[in-house]
Amino acid sequence: MNQEVDISLTATPKKKGHFADRLIAAIKEKGNAVCVGLDPRLEQIPEFIKKKQVEEHGETFEAAAHCFLDFNVGIIDAVADIVPVVKPQIAFYEQYGFAGIWAYEETCKYAQEKGLIVIADAKRNDIGSTAEGYAKAFLGEVDLFGDNVPGLDADALTVTPYLGYDGIKPFVKACDEYGKGIFALVKTSNPSSGDLQDQMVKDGKMANYELMSHLVESWGSDLVGKSGYSSVGAVVGATHPKQAAEIRKYLPQAIFLVPGYGAQGGGAEDVRPCFNEDGLGAIVNSSRGITFAYQKEEYAKNYDEKAYAEAAKAASLSMIEDLKTIF
Amino acid sequence: MNQEVDISLTATPKKKGHFADRLIAAIKEKGNAVCVGLDPRLEQIPEFIKKKQVEEHGETFEAAAHCFLDFNVGIIDAVADIVPVVKPQIAFYEQYGFAGIWAYEETCKYAQEKGLIVIADAKRNDIGSTAEGYAKAFLGEVDLFGDNVPGLDADALTVTPYLGYDGIKPFVKACDEYGKGIFALVKTSNPSSGDLQDQMVKDGKMANYELMSHLVESWGSDLVGKSGYSSVGAVVGATHPKQAAEIRKYLPQAIFLVPGYGAQGGGAEDVRPCFNEDGLGAIVNSSRGITFAYQKEEYAKNYDEKAYAEAAKAASLSMIEDLKTIF
Repeated sequence: MNQEVDISLTATPKKKGHFADRLIAAIKEKGNAVCVGLDPRLEQIPEFIKKKQVEEHGETFEAAAHCFLDFNVGIIDAVADIVPVVKPQIAFYEQYGFAGIWAYEETCKYAQEKGLIVIADAKRNDIGSTAEGYAKAFLGEVDLFGDNVPGLDADALTVTPYLGYDGIKPFVKACDEYGKGIFALVKTSNPSSGDLQDQMVKDGKMANYELMSHLVESWGSDLVGKSGYSSVGAVVGATHPKQAAEIRKYLPQAIFLVPGYGAQGGGAEDVRPCFNEDGLGAIVNSSRGITFAYQKEEYAKNYDEKAYAEAAKAASLSMIEDLKTIF
Repeated sequence: MNQEVDISLTATPKKKGHFADRLIAAIKEKGNAVCVGLDPRLEQIPEFIKKKQVEEHGETFEAAAHCFLDFNVGIIDAVADIVPVVKPQIAFYEQYGFAGIWAYEETCKYAQEKGLIVIADAKRNDIGSTAEGYAKAFLGEVDLFGDNVPGLDADALTVTPYLGYDGIKPFVKACDEYGKGIFALVKTSNPSSGDLQDQMVKDGKMANYELMSHLVESWGSDLVGKSGYSSVGAVVGATHPKQAAEIRKYLPQAIFLVPGYGAQGGGAEDVRPCFNEDGLGAIVNSSRGITFAYQKEEYAKNYDEKAYAEAAKAASLSMIEDLKTIF
């Protein structure tokens, strides 16, 4: 495998360097591993934004899309200098049809312009020929009347491994070709994650999530960069610290994307096992806890809705401090 | 559970009747269980369509989106009277960003206007609060400044069950509320499907796909309609007839969505085990084999690219005849 490794954050249109190396460089530069989830909910967007957009576009999907973009631009401006990564969850945008996807695209572009790494949280999965379509859409280039041009052009994408290797291979190939990354679901943060993931396989020797860990290890082994980390990472929920510690052992070279901190109940101590001894190897996501901090009691007294971005910055700084306590 | 069951095909904006009953009625009306997959690939769209759209929109994503819609309208017009269901795979549209999603939405709307049932093949999956977002997007209604309005409004959606019940529950709830359906991946058609799905669990008593069958059975048990079928169905690949026969036994009330016929190698005999003895209980998908029939040797001699829709109709009729041989 012939990889150009470029750990700087400057992007070239065709190949953006090695994803894991770029991510590790960004974490070191910002001095923390916080990922801000951009999951807008129309009913929680400040009234002053909604008023402005409804005046301009009426009560339409377009207005909703503009509300999301306006809101996100404020959050991105507030956190771009202090955190390395943002993660828009596409479900919240997809609700508003193509207008919502427009807001998603513009949000990703704006975050990248501000130097942030963008993880598209879309948990895509399908058979090989269709997975190739998703890989082109989010990570690679699409055919445009004979030319190849970037699609949604995220830096990384979450994927679901239910279909096995040939459903993952097109994403891995795109990671290699375009300097992008994937995070495969291994052990998710939700209460029912054990329904399938905790079932014991291989004559009771391991759980499904452990089997998936080993598969992720093998899928990512050719994509390890100079940082020692692979561009094939794993999603491991903060709500399962015991399992996270096991998975960390199986996957020393994978970067963990860790949901479940904050709103879902995980704390700093719970995410500790997701990191390696070097203090690297994981990024910890918080969505509602940061973006809608202005509605939380502890911030509402100092920040009104017009100061929602400042509240998000304060919540990010608080999370950064909290995570520092574990090392 | 208080369900209004309406097996007519006439839709009301709020509640479209019981999904499985609507689907079974459509299958009976058309006399076959063929699902036409609408998976457009720009490089395979006839030149006369591309020429027209590029002249109007330049070589842009918008032009690509219009090509997809033009192409699909031709296919839909050709097959609407002979098949009950279409299934657009969203990856192919998502490649072209929000313009592609516009084409997806318009395709779904047009197919529904023509009386076809539309299955959104998107294999969505996430934790509960996000799955709720996807459920609103594809099946239910979204908040629009205090009003609830339909989102993408498909009749059914494919979902991936890696996260367990709480990631599926919001979809089941939307099925009940809005008369929609879901098809959960159980045993997929791709070669690596066994990586996870075939692993033996429960002390070697069953494979993961069998466990998933039992879970799908329980998830769908409250949504069985007058037809005897549940609005919670299963995706079972035509490429695994032996496993399909087992799953059929575990899931007598589920409708199977069967990919893998034609281009992926499955034939009429392979899909036989997906049906119940009554000749119902499954819909069989073919995408490329129908939509791009005009490029296949057996059709190319009688249909030029301008007759791509007629070729698709001929291929559909041929598939209908082929499937009739199994009963």
